[in-house]
Amino acid sequence: MRTQMGESVLSRVVRIFEAFTPEEPALTVSEISRRTGLHVATTSRLVAELVSHEFLTRDEDRRVRIGMRVWELVTRASPTLSVRNAAMPFMEGVHDVVGHHVQLGVLDGGEVLFLERLSAPGAVINYTRIAGRLPLHASSSGLVLLAHGPADLRERALAGPLHRYTPNTPADPAQLRAILAEVRRQGYAYCPGYVHPEALGVAAPVRDDRGEVVAALAVIVPNNVGAQSVVPVVRTAARGVSRALGTPAPQDRQHHSGAVRDGGATP
Amino acid sequence: MRTQMGESVLSRVVRIFEAFTPEEPALTVSEISRRTGLHVATTSRLVAELVSHEFLTRDEDRRVRIGMRVWELVTRASPTLSVRNAAMPFMEGVHDVVGHHVQLGVLDGGEVLFLERLSAPGAVINYTRIAGRLPLHASSSGLVLLAHGPADLRERALAGPLHRYTPNTPADPAQLRAILAEVRRQGYAYCPGYVHPEALGVAAPVRDDRGEVVAALAVIVPNNVGAQSVVPVVRTAARGVSRALGTPAPQDRQHHSGAVRDGGATP
Repeated sequence: MRTQMGESVLSRVVRIFEAFTPEEPALTVSEISRRTGLHVATTSRLVAELVSHEFLTRDEDRRVRIGMRVWELVTRASPTLSVRNAAMPFMEGVHDVVGHHVQLGVLDGGEVLFLERLSAPGAVINYTRIAGRLPLHASSSGLVLLAHGPADLRERALAGPLHRYTPNTPADPAQLRAILAEVRRQGYAYCPGYVHPEALGVAAPVRDDRGEVVAALAVIVPNNVGAQSVVPVVRTAARGVSRALGTPAPQDRQHHSGAVRDGGATP
Repeated sequence: MRTQMGESVLSRVVRIFEAFTPEEPALTVSEISRRTGLHVATTSRLVAELVSHEFLTRDEDRRVRIGMRVWELVTRASPTLSVRNAAMPFMEGVHDVVGHHVQLGVLDGGEVLFLERLSAPGAVINYTRIAGRLPLHASSSGLVLLAHGPADLRERALAGPLHRYTPNTPADPAQLRAILAEVRRQGYAYCPGYVHPEALGVAAPVRDDRGEVVAALAVIVPNNVGAQSVVPVVRTAARGVSRALGTPAPQDRQHHSGAVRDGGATP
């Protein structure tokens, strides 16, 4: 099916894109060569061509960055953009009232990928960023996505390894299974100190027009008893986003009919 | 320098990415083939390889979309992200008070590219969207970026063509030159009905740590006399973003020393 040539060029381009990180968004050709393991001449040629397509740009000091053109192409037609756009006014509303961090995550490659984050100066510690990731078992968003995700993903997650960030992280499969059933039953995840002892995450599911869970809306607040008050705020906002996406009402049948509709991961 | 093979594969991949639009974010292989002018077999092979790298994804109904992985790679290391992140709290503040549309634009390829937009249901008509574009001469953000942009860009813009969206659009070079001088002198652009008769844009420059204009922060409100009240709001927010980016104070020297510092486009 594929030519050796085509595969090889594309794989190299993927490696070049992967070389750029939030910590180091600007690299020289020799740095890119070192990180990708590609020969300097190959790197130089591919970078030049990516620059000609505006997929990369070059600083005055010859450092290379991700170009606006590729950002534009993938953002304007991104299927995530419709969920993110529907969620923004609700997230802003939550952010105005609760402060701290408000974020929107989706399932991608067995992790939570954060599409959006609103935060405040001096807010509680948080490890997410836009286009950042967290494992499913440790974060409130991840637990919501895992609880409502495909059964095989849940089984793979339960099979571990389950990294323990704090003594509170649910790193035991039986405990995780019970938490997932609870998330489905109560309609949200409540996670005191799972990722960091001082932070508490509350997340609720966002559903699309077929009633499928497509994202998790979460708030990260200080890990104290006052955090309970954000639960209805987060749930209401997530419900609002779902309505904006055209989800059928009533969404929250799991209150009445239990977790069986979500398929089989009860303990 | 470049092999014919490598160039051709990359150019084809660029064409495939360009086939996806906000209106049609999901396409079949034959639709992609038709839009790119690539042979169906070539399209099918390249799509399969892009899917294997998660740069594209395939629905259950075999339609192809932009993948999360490429969005993640370009977003996490995008140089635009730091400006956008610095601007968000200020934009949210403006949005809370003014409502309507608040947007952040940067100069790209002789146009304004919008990085971010906050809007409200029922807000005044606006043609921008995230990762959307507008010409420089017609939009308030564009006029700010053009007024502070490189002299050769300004000369090219003045050489036209200058599309007239409404009778108010500055489509005459002499008038546009005068408006740009005014934008530099007063520190903002005020654009009643330039893009649509019922909308008015107000934009102010965002400067980086070297004092260079890197973005324009704008508000789009109904085209009436009350719009004057948003000028200080937009200017203050743009100043705040610039401070957050580490711009040296005082930024607004053009109030005292005139447009000459911005280089030569006064009439």
